[in-house]
Amino acid sequence: MSFSGQVVTSRTNPRLKQLRAAFQGQARLSSGLIAVEGEHMVEEALKSGQALKTVFLSERMELPAYVPASVEVVSVASDVFASIAETRTPQGIAALLVPPAHSVEKMLEGPGEALILIAVGLQDPGNLGTLIRSAEAFGATGVLTTPGTVSPWNQKAMRASAGSVFRLPVAVATPDAMETLEQQGIKLLAAMKDDAVAIGEADLTVGSAILIGNEGAGLNEDWLRLADQRVTIPCPGWVESLNAAVAGSILLYEASRQRGART
Amino acid sequence: MSFSGQVVTSRTNPRLKQLRAAFQGQARLSSGLIAVEGEHMVEEALKSGQALKTVFLSERMELPAYVPASVEVVSVASDVFASIAETRTPQGIAALLVPPAHSVEKMLEGPGEALILIAVGLQDPGNLGTLIRSAEAFGATGVLTTPGTVSPWNQKAMRASAGSVFRLPVAVATPDAMETLEQQGIKLLAAMKDDAVAIGEADLTVGSAILIGNEGAGLNEDWLRLADQRVTIPCPGWVESLNAAVAGSILLYEASRQRGART
Repeated sequence: MSFSGQVVTSRTNPRLKQLRAAFQGQARLSSGLIAVEGEHMVEEALKSGQALKTVFLSERMELPAYVPASVEVVSVASDVFASIAETRTPQGIAALLVPPAHSVEKMLEGPGEALILIAVGLQDPGNLGTLIRSAEAFGATGVLTTPGTVSPWNQKAMRASAGSVFRLPVAVATPDAMETLEQQGIKLLAAMKDDAVAIGEADLTVGSAILIGNEGAGLNEDWLRLADQRVTIPCPGWVESLNAAVAGSILLYEASRQRGART
Repeated sequence: MSFSGQVVTSRTNPRLKQLRAAFQGQARLSSGLIAVEGEHMVEEALKSGQALKTVFLSERMELPAYVPASVEVVSVASDVFASIAETRTPQGIAALLVPPAHSVEKMLEGPGEALILIAVGLQDPGNLGTLIRSAEAFGATGVLTTPGTVSPWNQKAMRASAGSVFRLPVAVATPDAMETLEQQGIKLLAAMKDDAVAIGEADLTVGSAILIGNEGAGLNEDWLRLADQRVTIPCPGWVESLNAAVAGSILLYEASRQRGART
């Protein structure tokens, strides 16, 4: 274990600067590393086979047994740790890790038909994380996020995903990725508030990718033009729209239901 | 309009103390009144026919045209307003109102079969609000919350409900209310993570009430004993559980689907 035993008390320590940048989503300053915080998330990351670069421990914390001996450990003065941590009551452990790299090709590989959720401009990290959690639960093969969507490596998004973000392939919906989906004959469905085919009447058993729009504005014209079919969730009650994470989760549930899912 | 024109600058003004108590959920000190904050929520409350008791305006705000002339208006110094408001960037308008009073009997009245969601010990106000929003969307006749559940009048819960909390009957799941459901032959379904009937195979076309448990612990034995049937959402993917708001929303969607909903 590369645990020097020395406690870092300077906020300008290079490793701490990298951790702070990762928490703030500044990929260049963090060398592309992402930060995770708290016992549960660090353990989830490890369990899912992520390679930890550095573990940061508040000076009062013991090194948990699940951290492999090969990982660099930095002990940090309590007040310095609290100034960097994102949560109000930091648990005294954080880590830097290399984010898993996934391609859209990987989402099309499996034995069954592909089922991909595409988050288009979602702003609420809780919604994105919840969608990734539902995507894994309903057997989706991956999640794509457009460049205007909140990062799946946002702390709230990771917590809301309950670890699914480490297990399910997540990648950026680049123009190349979208072209691959088209070339592979993946059916692109746009989720709408109304004026569309009821989801129960759309065929979701074929290879499908579901576009979920921004919480307020929905999907813009550019995305709607790309879609092969517009679908909606029939709502008998009066309500302007469903929550974006709920709508996406119901579409994934419906796909799973049509594909004959059993627990 | 009872707008005295005088700007309140004292934090100990009795009306402001009542507003602060309402924001903090101290029902006794707020005389049972609830607080709403922001243009959108105040307007939603009014549109849904709620009786506003008092409107509070930050001194720089104009009185919106939609506020009826009969409502008491209190103008508040900006810094005092900011010290009371719950949001980080207060919009300068808040109101005190009498919460709508609903009974479980009202949820059983309608022409169709009853569909009730019972939130059992939910702690996350966003989850509760999202469930109330989905309940309205899928034609539920009401939502009951157990005494251990976060208040539907919590600011975050109200915002997540997107105004549904003002339109759909919401009441407390008292022992009397639960007895009424039993006497009226309402089928009580307990949502489980596994070891239960797949939701697509349970009959949700009869009068039904769905129990959704706490985010971490699920439903305890007392509630499980009350249930007529245990149901689960089949998840082919590996995941410990679904988000509570997502699970409840999918059960409501499934009920609506079985009942033949059309947009």
